[in-house]
This record gives sequence, structure tokens and C-alpha cells, in this order.
Amino acid sequence: MSETRLRAKELDAADGLAAKRAEFLLDEDGGEGGDAVYLDGNSLGALPVAVPGRVEDVVRRQWGALRIRSWTESGWWTAPERIGDRIAPLVGATAGQIVVGDSTSVNVFKAVVGAVRLARSADSAAGPARDEIVVDATTFPTDGYIAESAARMTGCTLRPVPPSEVPDALGDRTAAVLLNHVDYRTGRLHDLPALTAAVHAAGAYVVWDLCHSAGALPVGLDEHGVDLAVGCTYKYLNGGPGSPAYLYVRAELQDRFDSPLPGWNSHAEPFGMRPEYAPAPGALRGRVGTPDILSMLALEAALDVWDGVPVEAVRAKSLALTDFFLECVEAYVPEGRVECLTPRRHGERGSQIALRCPDAGDVMERLIERGVVGDFRHPDVLRFGFTPLYVGFADTERAARVLAEVLAETGA
Amino acid sequence: MSETRLRAKELDAADGLAAKRAEFLLDEDGGEGGDAVYLDGNSLGALPVAVPGRVEDVVRRQWGALRIRSWTESGWWTAPERIGDRIAPLVGATAGQIVVGDSTSVNVFKAVVGAVRLARSADSAAGPARDEIVVDATTFPTDGYIAESAARMTGCTLRPVPPSEVPDALGDRTAAVLLNHVDYRTGRLHDLPALTAAVHAAGAYVVWDLCHSAGALPVGLDEHGVDLAVGCTYKYLNGGPGSPAYLYVRAELQDRFDSPLPGWNSHAEPFGMRPEYAPAPGALRGRVGTPDILSMLALEAALDVWDGVPVEAVRAKSLALTDFFLECVEAYVPEGRVECLTPRRHGERGSQIALRCPDAGDVMERLIERGVVGDFRHPDVLRFGFTPLYVGFADTERAARVLAEVLAETGA
Repeated sequence: MSETRLRAKELDAADGLAAKRAEFLLDEDGGEGGDAVYLDGNSLGALPVAVPGRVEDVVRRQWGALRIRSWTESGWWTAPERIGDRIAPLVGATAGQIVVGDSTSVNVFKAVVGAVRLARSADSAAGPARDEIVVDATTFPTDGYIAESAARMTGCTLRPVPPSEVPDALGDRTAAVLLNHVDYRTGRLHDLPALTAAVHAAGAYVVWDLCHSAGALPVGLDEHGVDLAVGCTYKYLNGGPGSPAYLYVRAELQDRFDSPLPGWNSHAEPFGMRPEYAPAPGALRGRVGTPDILSMLALEAALDVWDGVPVEAVRAKSLALTDFFLECVEAYVPEGRVECLTPRRHGERGSQIALRCPDAGDVMERLIERGVVGDFRHPDVLRFGFTPLYVGFADTERAARVLAEVLAETGA
Repeated sequence: MSETRLRAKELDAADGLAAKRAEFLLDEDGGEGGDAVYLDGNSLGALPVAVPGRVEDVVRRQWGALRIRSWTESGWWTAPERIGDRIAPLVGATAGQIVVGDSTSVNVFKAVVGAVRLARSADSAAGPARDEIVVDATTFPTDGYIAESAARMTGCTLRPVPPSEVPDALGDRTAAVLLNHVDYRTGRLHDLPALTAAVHAAGAYVVWDLCHSAGALPVGLDEHGVDLAVGCTYKYLNGGPGSPAYLYVRAELQDRFDSPLPGWNSHAEPFGMRPEYAPAPGALRGRVGTPDILSMLALEAALDVWDGVPVEAVRAKSLALTDFFLECVEAYVPEGRVECLTPRRHGERGSQIALRCPDAGDVMERLIERGVVGDFRHPDVLRFGFTPLYVGFADTERAARVLAEVLAETGA
């Protein structure tokens, strides 16, 4: 066994989170057609073993037998805020600020329109109208599309700006700023505390998209005074395909949060069936329509894996895994064959490694054939996501080794 | 056995849809804590027996073993339009006009904003700007709240009007009209063909909310030239609690449909990850974010019960059930004790009976204790929904009989 493989074994033996792996259905559990090394948890998290039984109970007993009574008896009605409170500690939020529901895109719309309205309601009569929305130019596309729609519908102009240039782009016309905590393509971690402070110094409101950071590293929403945040739950939170997203509205802003999607679930008295809208107090104001119970309760079961797991431990292992992966790639892959897009500095790295190579599409196909599952992002990026709860160091070494084999076969 | 009970037996024996009941998990199937007569399918449809096994496969095999590969291999990515095409014949639509996803409230927002934009893009330069949205004043509240937000965000005024007065309220300033096919409270069926024609005659666009009609009666979206429609899938379509809603955009309007929620799933090239939005052709344009797969595929399994069932047969049985219920109530309940809010005329009746009585909340509680499950709508309405696929005539007679017993006990 090579020295690197031995090191992987030692690192796995010393890993305080190693036992968590047993809480997921991975291939040693006999999954059919499964993958040996799953490095795509930044796209779809693996299945926690608690989920199938819980879902079966929700379907057969709660829906099938109790039916409509489950809205109260099985806690369906309060699920969006209850599950929001489960997510809260993972992103550094105290209870009562997060509701779960709708897709990330829909939540981006609520948050960006809400941020513009907050900025305008806070505006002094003296200054110019705030009519600009600044967005991360390297954003996952849907955020940009939705921000464009929010701009159009609030009479704003959308300004796409590279994250490093955001501070210079801010001014007294800035209403809202939409930023990604971790870049979906490169895995770069942006400086949430500094950028939030810069937005606030300009008198504007910030919306953070946590899709690629929540569950992988500490976010510190409360600590850093973030105004609004959104995120999905199917990546590092393992909620299942298309599981509902969430919306964070800082407690002090909730009374002024003015949602563009004021559905009956956010009404102060939803069963009063009143023709006039009156918003509920608190985070509930971010709800819209009837919550999607099967997916939401699958997510609730999936969150059990976090019991007793500090995000700091996850972050430490994530950095150790990505460091080790880079070390293995350097050891196994000839120099120049791939280019690492992910920053080396820990403070700038999320929980994935993005490697650029000209034949990335072909390379990823061959990797997947050999059981190493990452994904490909057009036109030339290989993405490898490291989920510390179920990825180990031997997996990481193997992924780099198979990558080197594939790269050796495919001339580039 | 009373004559009425004998008649119920005969009607059940002659019921061509009676065999469908076996395709649902009802109490004879051993459901724990179940209800003897379930007349709340207009709130949450009963569980089709095909669903639990399908959901288990989706969770364990598609998510648990195939994971990310299921987006293509298990048909996840195309589920919104594939399942839309399954719903289409139930509402009189040809394929390619419906996508499933998001809540009804979110779809109302897409449809109403979309309708206003259609009206404006079609406007001749000569006339006044179209700046009014007309909404059914008796609407389910969320439609009104969302229409108000759509009005605010498109510079329109919202005009709530009783459905019977809608034709007189229309004019050359009307942009969009949002109407409920069946009133959620009274069960009144509105005249979709005539109202659609009136809206078109005014040069405006109509959005129909089909929550309380789809799966209970023929809708005829294509036949009557409806522009846009939305509906939920957890009532007469039995998709499960909070299962995703759907959006219909008439084929000829799709190229001009301009969604206020242009998420990456509606992009012409969603995996191109392009910073500029370019809408997909067709119904896909109504998609937003990542579809909620567990709930969506549960719905797909639930739709199997419609195989070979003509909506016309469902409608005939629905009217026979509600006629019979009214007959039983008249026979068993002293005159004046309850007032029927649902129209007697078939052409004006949906698939529920609403009875008003001053102590409705207390009465419904007692009914539920005795296994007859309807629901209560503030302040004084008892609602009984009749789902022809699993409610029979003996159920109906029993519900009326238990209602009479409860009403006799509770002095009013």
C-alpha cells in the first residue's frame, strides 16, 4: 500500500465524524447500482437511513389513516417554522427567523423584493431613491434571473458585479445586494462578514444565498448581522431531490418584511378566511401557500443526522478532506493536466474542489463509470463535493487515484 | 332497513365507478384511527394504494442508490411537464400546456402577472392603458392576496367583484381577471364558458383557479379558450398533503407568456448556466426552480387511478351523490335547522354541499368524533365534499343520518 493510502487509513481512523457515515445509505448498505465514492453531495446529498421509514409513516399513517386530521395532530401546519428552527443552528441563527418552503428561486424573489422594500422604507426623504440591485456576476444563474425580475418589478436597475468589486459598486442608490456565500462553480468562499458590513455601510440590505455553504461550514447569520438569506436543503443538508428551500429574515426586520408573495399561510389568521391580507408576525411572514408535506417531513427526518454535530467539526473535516484531495491530485496527476479553480487558502474555500481540464465532460463520464461520482459544469469544469458526514479520506484518495488513471488514458 | 338505506344499496350496486374505491386506502383496509365516511376529499384526497410503494422506490432506489443519476435515469428532470400531461385530459387540455410545480399561490402570481403582461403586449397604442385586475370577491383568500400583490407590482388597481357582476365590471382598462371555477365555501360552480367569453370580449385575459373543480367535473380549458389556469393537486386529484400545483398556459399564448419567476428551470438551456435569461419554448416556461421530486412522483403515482376514467362519469356520479345527500338531509333533518348554501341547479353546483347552521363548529366536531369527516369554515359553514372515485351512496346516507343525530342533540 502506498504511503498516501496508508495516510488515508490513519486519517479515517482518527476522524471524529467517521461514525456518522453509518447514518447514510451508502453502497456498503447494498444499494443497487450504487457508486463507490460519492462526491456529488454538493448537488444531491446521500439518503439518511432515517428517511425511508419516516416517509412511509407520513404516507401510510399520517396521510392514509389520519388524513386531514394530520394538519394538527401530526404537526403538518407548523412544519415550515419547526423545521426552520432545526436548520437555524446550522447557519448560526437563533430560533424564529427561518421558514422552510418553496424552491430556492422563489425564496430569492421574496428576499430580494423584500430587501428593496426594506431599503426604501428606511430611506430618509433627503437622499436619492434607492433604485439599484447589485448581484454577484458569477452567481448561480437562477439568482441572477430572479434578481432581474425583482429589479424590473420594483423599478430598479440590476448591476452584476464580480464579488471582489462589490464594495466599490455600493452607494446611496443601492437598495439590495444578492450574493452567494460559496461560488457553485469554483467553490470559492466569499467574505460574508466583510461584505455584509460593506452593504450596511452603504445603507443597503443584503441577501445571502447559502446553497453551497449551509451544512458545510459555519455561516454566522446572526453574528454578522445578515439581513436576509436563502438556501436549498438538498445539498449538504441531505433533504432529498428538490426538497424545500428556506428563508431567513433577521428578527429585527420581520415587522417590516413585506413579501411579494403574501399567500394565505403567511396571514395573521389563516383560517379566518378574511378578504384583506394582514401579515403574521415573525418568520411566518415568509410562508406562502400550503406546505409540501412529504418532502418537508423527509427533510425533517434527514436533519436528525445533525444531532450533536457541531458545524465547526464539519468545517475542520471538510478542509482536511479538500486539502488531502489536492495533495493526492498533486501526487498522482502530472502537473499542468488540470488547473485548480478553488482557492488554496482555507478562508476562501468552500467544501468542493473544482478542477478545470479541456476534456472535462469526457473525463467525468469515465469517472462515473468507475464509481467516482462528481459532476461536470459546462464547458470545462470537474466538480468534486466533500460532505464530511459521509465522505472519508480513503474515498478521497481513491477518487484522486481514479482521476489520475482516467486522465492518463484520455490524451489532452 | 329504511327505504332510503335500501336505495343507497341499490345505487351503490349500479355504480360504474364503485370498483375504483379499492384503489384507495380507506378504513376497510385497516387504516389506524381512520374515519368511517370521508367527505373531506375537497380538502385532502384519500391515499391511493399505488402511492406508498412508489414513494418507497423513489426514496430508496432512485434517491438512495442512483442518487444524482436519477435526474436523467429516473426521469426527475422532465417530471413537471410529464405529470402536467397526465393532468391535462382531466381539465380538457391537450398535451404541452401544463407544468406541475410550486404551490397554488405561487402559480396564481405567475398567472396573474403573466395575464397583465399579455394584455399589455397585445394592447393597441390607441386605447387607454390596461391597469385593472378584476378578482372574484368571494375567492379563496390567497388568490385575492396574491392578486393584490400582482396588482401592486404591475401598477394595476385590484377590483374585487362578485362573480355575477364580473361582466359589467369589464372594460377597456381591464387587463386580467382571476376567477374561481367552484367557490370553496358554497360549492357554487361558476359559468366558465360565459365568463371567459365576456373577458375576451373586453380584450382582457382570464385566469381560472381550478382547485375545487379539477378531478370533479369537466373543465374544458381548450374548448372554451381559457388563457391561463392554476390548480392544486391534493383535493380531487389525491396527490397528498401540499402536493405541487400546476399552471396551464394556452399553447397560442406561450411564446408571449412572460413569467415574473424566471428561474433556471424555465431557461431554454438550463445547464448552459448562462448569465442571461432566455425562456424555454412551450409550457416549460412556467417552471421556476428545482422540482420537488418526492411530492411530485407521489402525485404521479396517485394519477394512476384516473386510467380509463372519463371525467364525465365522475361528474354524473358527483351530481347523483350530492343530489342524494340533499335528499337524505331533507328526509332526516328538521326543516330550518340547516340552510343549504350550494345551488340546487346542476349547472351551478360543484362536488360539495355546504350547509349553514349557527353551531357549525360544534356540529362538525361531533360528526368527526362519530367518523363522519367533513370540515368547518368560519363562522357557520359545514362543508361535505364528495369524491366520486371513493365515496359511495351508503356513505352518503350514513353521513346525513349521523348529521341528523348530531343536530338533534345540539339545540340551536
